[in-house]
Amino acid sequence: MLSVEEAFRTIVGQFRPLETERVPLREACDRVLAEDVRSPEPVPPFDNSAMDGYAVRFEDTLGASAGAPVALFVVGEVPAGRAPEARVEPGTAVRVMTGAPMPEGADAVVMREDTREHPDRVEVLLPAEHGEHVRRVGDDIPADSRVLEAGTVLNPSALGVLASIGVGRIAVVRRPRVALLATGDELVELGQPLGPGQIRNSSAHALEAAIAAMGAVPVPLGIARDDRAELTAKLHEGARADLLVTTGGVSVGDYDLVREVLTSLGQLDLWRVNMQPGKPLAFGHIDGCPVLGLPGNPVSSMVAFELFVRPAIRRLQGHTALAHARVPVVLDAPMTKKNARRQYLRAVVRLVDGAFHADLTGPQGSHMLTSMARANALVILPEGTRSYAAGDRVEGHLLGEGALFENRDSDAV
Amino acid sequence: MLSVEEAFRTIVGQFRPLETERVPLREACDRVLAEDVRSPEPVPPFDNSAMDGYAVRFEDTLGASAGAPVALFVVGEVPAGRAPEARVEPGTAVRVMTGAPMPEGADAVVMREDTREHPDRVEVLLPAEHGEHVRRVGDDIPADSRVLEAGTVLNPSALGVLASIGVGRIAVVRRPRVALLATGDELVELGQPLGPGQIRNSSAHALEAAIAAMGAVPVPLGIARDDRAELTAKLHEGARADLLVTTGGVSVGDYDLVREVLTSLGQLDLWRVNMQPGKPLAFGHIDGCPVLGLPGNPVSSMVAFELFVRPAIRRLQGHTALAHARVPVVLDAPMTKKNARRQYLRAVVRLVDGAFHADLTGPQGSHMLTSMARANALVILPEGTRSYAAGDRVEGHLLGEGALFENRDSDAV
Repeated sequence: MLSVEEAFRTIVGQFRPLETERVPLREACDRVLAEDVRSPEPVPPFDNSAMDGYAVRFEDTLGASAGAPVALFVVGEVPAGRAPEARVEPGTAVRVMTGAPMPEGADAVVMREDTREHPDRVEVLLPAEHGEHVRRVGDDIPADSRVLEAGTVLNPSALGVLASIGVGRIAVVRRPRVALLATGDELVELGQPLGPGQIRNSSAHALEAAIAAMGAVPVPLGIARDDRAELTAKLHEGARADLLVTTGGVSVGDYDLVREVLTSLGQLDLWRVNMQPGKPLAFGHIDGCPVLGLPGNPVSSMVAFELFVRPAIRRLQGHTALAHARVPVVLDAPMTKKNARRQYLRAVVRLVDGAFHADLTGPQGSHMLTSMARANALVILPEGTRSYAAGDRVEGHLLGEGALFENRDSDAV
Repeated sequence: MLSVEEAFRTIVGQFRPLETERVPLREACDRVLAEDVRSPEPVPPFDNSAMDGYAVRFEDTLGASAGAPVALFVVGEVPAGRAPEARVEPGTAVRVMTGAPMPEGADAVVMREDTREHPDRVEVLLPAEHGEHVRRVGDDIPADSRVLEAGTVLNPSALGVLASIGVGRIAVVRRPRVALLATGDELVELGQPLGPGQIRNSSAHALEAAIAAMGAVPVPLGIARDDRAELTAKLHEGARADLLVTTGGVSVGDYDLVREVLTSLGQLDLWRVNMQPGKPLAFGHIDGCPVLGLPGNPVSSMVAFELFVRPAIRRLQGHTALAHARVPVVLDAPMTKKNARRQYLRAVVRLVDGAFHADLTGPQGSHMLTSMARANALVILPEGTRSYAAGDRVEGHLLGEGALFENRDSDAV
């Protein structure tokens, strides 16, 4: 049996970032920048005041104090967004608003709070230092400097940075299209009546949501019956995407046709991975398209998605950080392993005094998707058989931001 | 000056979840369920086999061993998705695939691996226990049980659970519409040339992306000039949304009209909050719509968004966990506070051996949005003045999933 790490390396190692496309900022959030961006303009674009106050020559204010203020003639005013008209000569000052361009001749700003204001003059109560409260041109971004590197994940602030230098369209890695095919005669689609021996297709809905939530484009292909011709047609259709994910039919049962059809259409490796849930896993190619065959049980398919499909898609998206973090967690209840495979148990983790504590979300059968719906992390019990006591430390695999939001209703609202 | 906690309580305490709407599963991910969901059908819908193997009467297999196997006549076969035709009588077995309904008369399944198979009979090599490898009807979800509670955040697996019980549309809290208005004569929109004294509108782009990324609907209103009539019209327009967010014009400068117009149109409180960046903050109502007035500096507006706007929007969305988590962080470099206000410094945190370590992202001027673009957390230096040494522990406010992805390129791909 392959280890989880061997399966991860083999699968994810075959994926490369997709080609790039140029999109407006509005469509670029959380995507990966595909080019270095140099600034066509400096930010700020001119020396400006960091405060509401008076632009002065700092030398004029030396020796000023509340007891012996320095009086300066006010020769003009500059609101933000206007060009200064007056020039600061020795013995004069210009009133400036935050963000207003510095008038010629001035080399410092005195905050309004450090003055006494009169109609035509101002008394300065503190000496200013050279450059004080002045933001210099290019202070944040010098002109023609590299602002963002290819490979940067564009968060909202990065998009603000691009807007600040006048860049409105940007090259990013395009969104992967991920085809989803559920297989099995026992599956019935939403809205259809359940026949004898039939169950509802649930994995496809969960996987579709997970793919969309990570910024890829799901291409749902519905259900393929256990019929060679239908399966072949659907697999070719799915192979037009950037990745084809199937559920079911990869075990060793007589009716597990996916394995057989995949092998005859393309190239397929079927593995048993040393983990529970999610032992059977298929990986291969059809028509040049990578195919990941997940188990049919809904929990198994979601765990396999998290461990193998998510990192593969993130690689297609151009990310280098591929997997959700593993963190040390303290077990709040004892746990016993029933076999030697590495176990991934559905859990709720909470931050308590800076440490993650984990509690299971109920019965852990791999057909019990409710346990996964309540989880925000997977507790990892390593290979081998043993029991764990409450208070033991193991690793937890966080499933997203869920563990990172705090309920401050009680203490703060 | 208000503390951050006082401002949080006053603002967020005024928000309540919006009304609900019924949407298909595809539109429900990460949204808050607005009703208890009871299961119209049990999951699984019938007793079924957890393994590929043979459905038997467990009493028939007692005493079986590899040396003395028990032979049973095979009287039928049930693939998944079919109704069983044969009945298991004493001395017989029915071949079953994983997920196949249990035939009448059978009360256990023997795994294929624990048998020797022959054309018409099977030798059982181990005794079965009553109920072994049988998943009982309603094992995951009993019929007419409460499956999900109102208030649940619908993750992909929860959507799978809903699909598994045939529920295709669901009542969730509707998405908040958040109007965004930038103000100031100095601002120029993307694609326009910069005039003297002008800078580009960057905050609006960053805020729009942040609002969209959290599942709310941004309504960008562009830039309002420092003109009473224009500002009044735009504020009334924005007040048709569920929340109106403005940037700029809330300081005490002569041209900070937002404060003045807001006060005359509705009700407004202007505060200084004991924090840096982001000291000036306005909150009030126009035409019954809550208004949050953020500072004009891009970093200040993003920090204020994170501390006050995000929790307010999450409350509108029906969430009870409102704020990103604060975690203990170890400082990797010394830091000095320059004033007594609580400081929020832009930082990169990394998990090292289970502890978050923080490093600043460069100069921290509140006009320097690049420092925010590189950050995945805010380091919080509490009120008071002191210096912090490398290795000191303070609190960090995580900015999202960024800190939770691991780069496994080097060790695993």
